[in-house]
Amino acid sequence: MRAVVVNQPGGPEQLQFQDFPLPKLQIGDLLVKVKASAINRSDIIAREGQSNYLATPILGIEVSGEVVEVASGTNIEVGTRVMGLVNGGGYAEYVVMPADRAMKIPENLSFEEAAAIPEVFLTAYQTLFWLGELTDQDTVLIHAGGSGVGTAAIQLAKQMTQAKVITTAGSQDKLDFCRSLGADVCINYKEQSFEEEALIATNNQGVDLILDFIGASYWERNLKSLKTDGRWIMIGILGGSEVNKVNLMELLQKRVQLKATLLTPRSDEYKKELTKEFVQNAMPLFIQNKIKAIVDQVFQFEDIQNAHKHMEANKNLGKIILRVN
Amino acid sequence: MRAVVVNQPGGPEQLQFQDFPLPKLQIGDLLVKVKASAINRSDIIAREGQSNYLATPILGIEVSGEVVEVASGTNIEVGTRVMGLVNGGGYAEYVVMPADRAMKIPENLSFEEAAAIPEVFLTAYQTLFWLGELTDQDTVLIHAGGSGVGTAAIQLAKQMTQAKVITTAGSQDKLDFCRSLGADVCINYKEQSFEEEALIATNNQGVDLILDFIGASYWERNLKSLKTDGRWIMIGILGGSEVNKVNLMELLQKRVQLKATLLTPRSDEYKKELTKEFVQNAMPLFIQNKIKAIVDQVFQFEDIQNAHKHMEANKNLGKIILRVN
Repeated sequence: MRAVVVNQPGGPEQLQFQDFPLPKLQIGDLLVKVKASAINRSDIIAREGQSNYLATPILGIEVSGEVVEVASGTNIEVGTRVMGLVNGGGYAEYVVMPADRAMKIPENLSFEEAAAIPEVFLTAYQTLFWLGELTDQDTVLIHAGGSGVGTAAIQLAKQMTQAKVITTAGSQDKLDFCRSLGADVCINYKEQSFEEEALIATNNQGVDLILDFIGASYWERNLKSLKTDGRWIMIGILGGSEVNKVNLMELLQKRVQLKATLLTPRSDEYKKELTKEFVQNAMPLFIQNKIKAIVDQVFQFEDIQNAHKHMEANKNLGKIILRVN
Repeated sequence: MRAVVVNQPGGPEQLQFQDFPLPKLQIGDLLVKVKASAINRSDIIAREGQSNYLATPILGIEVSGEVVEVASGTNIEVGTRVMGLVNGGGYAEYVVMPADRAMKIPENLSFEEAAAIPEVFLTAYQTLFWLGELTDQDTVLIHAGGSGVGTAAIQLAKQMTQAKVITTAGSQDKLDFCRSLGADVCINYKEQSFEEEALIATNNQGVDLILDFIGASYWERNLKSLKTDGRWIMIGILGGSEVNKVNLMELLQKRVQLKATLLTPRSDEYKKELTKEFVQNAMPLFIQNKIKAIVDQVFQFEDIQNAHKHMEANKNLGKIILRVN
């Protein structure tokens, strides 16, 4: 089968195709013929050689496709349309998926749409509910509202709670789109001071919850935006990793709860439980068309290098999809 | 009545006695004739003019004493021996205490012992259980093991869970005492590298929970000591407030949960709920002599300046008490 590996750590030009034998199944596994895969920031980090979470040299952590073989210990049938997280190997014609994190694709969703769901919606779900403990009374600040996780988080927060959603993005197009997804307050971070707008929108109280993909460059401003006893969930560092001068007294005085998280390196058990709860609570909303998979652009499998370049240009609104088979 | 106020922000010499009328009660309040009060770090911070949480110019946030008057809305009788947190005013002959955070003093405890309980045990309880979610399977690293909160936390952790307790202190006396309270691993931070010892004691996994009173000077070493998915509760900054260079990628990779907390500025409701749970779960252990109030030294009320100097010298093992009446 054809699959994408990294020649040597570096830019998109280092992505190349290589032939592999079909992956072997273990108890509880499915073999999935991949219809679509999706690009994630963590793929770029892996391509650059900055992480090695994956069990295989083949990149890609989520797919949609058709089950073509099942190992013992599963009750999913051959032919089932599934989507889900994989432990690497998603940029390939076939991939192994643990059956306990395979989600059946609702009939109203295409394979391309389905591939846009697992990573960003599970991340958003984990961040908003498991770590963020979002309630109906809360106001949540979701940065990068036009990103994959951002568009997922806005929808989940608005459809599953009565919380007020404040979001930031860098263009009017993205902000309009965020509003169409339900965001209550949309801030252009290039033209407005998001921390001032967040305070205005919360009667100077600050927000209860921040979803922070940005990191260092927003550190001070996120701290200003946060309410006393607020929760600050860090899930990315698009704005850099290194904060010069952190004042711990400020954290104490606000009684900040800062939780840093990544989904990919977490255990199989964690992903299984997260998937199970997500299917139960959020999947009906996809079936009812209340929540949409947000596809920015579909690239052909052969065009993988351009798909990575597109993500690195930060132009995407929603997910970047690879059509594999 | 006589009470202690701050002349102007500064050192212990700024503490002076002043006459005040008896404080007025509101619905739900008790008037307590103070038998003993205790010194806290937050009193020193208030004395230095760095905080103004208190509703009165009189310092002091915890007392033991006898109820001499009750407002409507309480069911505690005049004459009851009580201990508890007050909203300032504890360095005085009389103080107002909301009845819903008055704890009846067990018969086996003196007023001096009782005054050593509220702030440090409630802080330790909040930190270990409400924020730290300590379980039987956990290993917890408790810094400043000889301090008021340290001695309280060691005892609560060992008496209420099966958790493994690692503690740090700066002298053999303190370490021996921590061991006598139940600490499993006692590290002299002046002679040993606590992060290396914590890793050795956890089979290189790191600890599940850190109680951090130190802040900036231990930042990197606490991060090294912490397990993936570990909880890091910050409750003090004896080692400074300002951390130069925080690497957020390290927080992400360890999926650190950093929770900063202070008890004094929290709401009346919070203190009421915390007190209620503490009385239910921990007070029986005092009655059974399984947990001890740790009194370092008792100062006469008039000797308040020396009591503050003693705390600032970091020589105390347990609580510094003021005998008021």
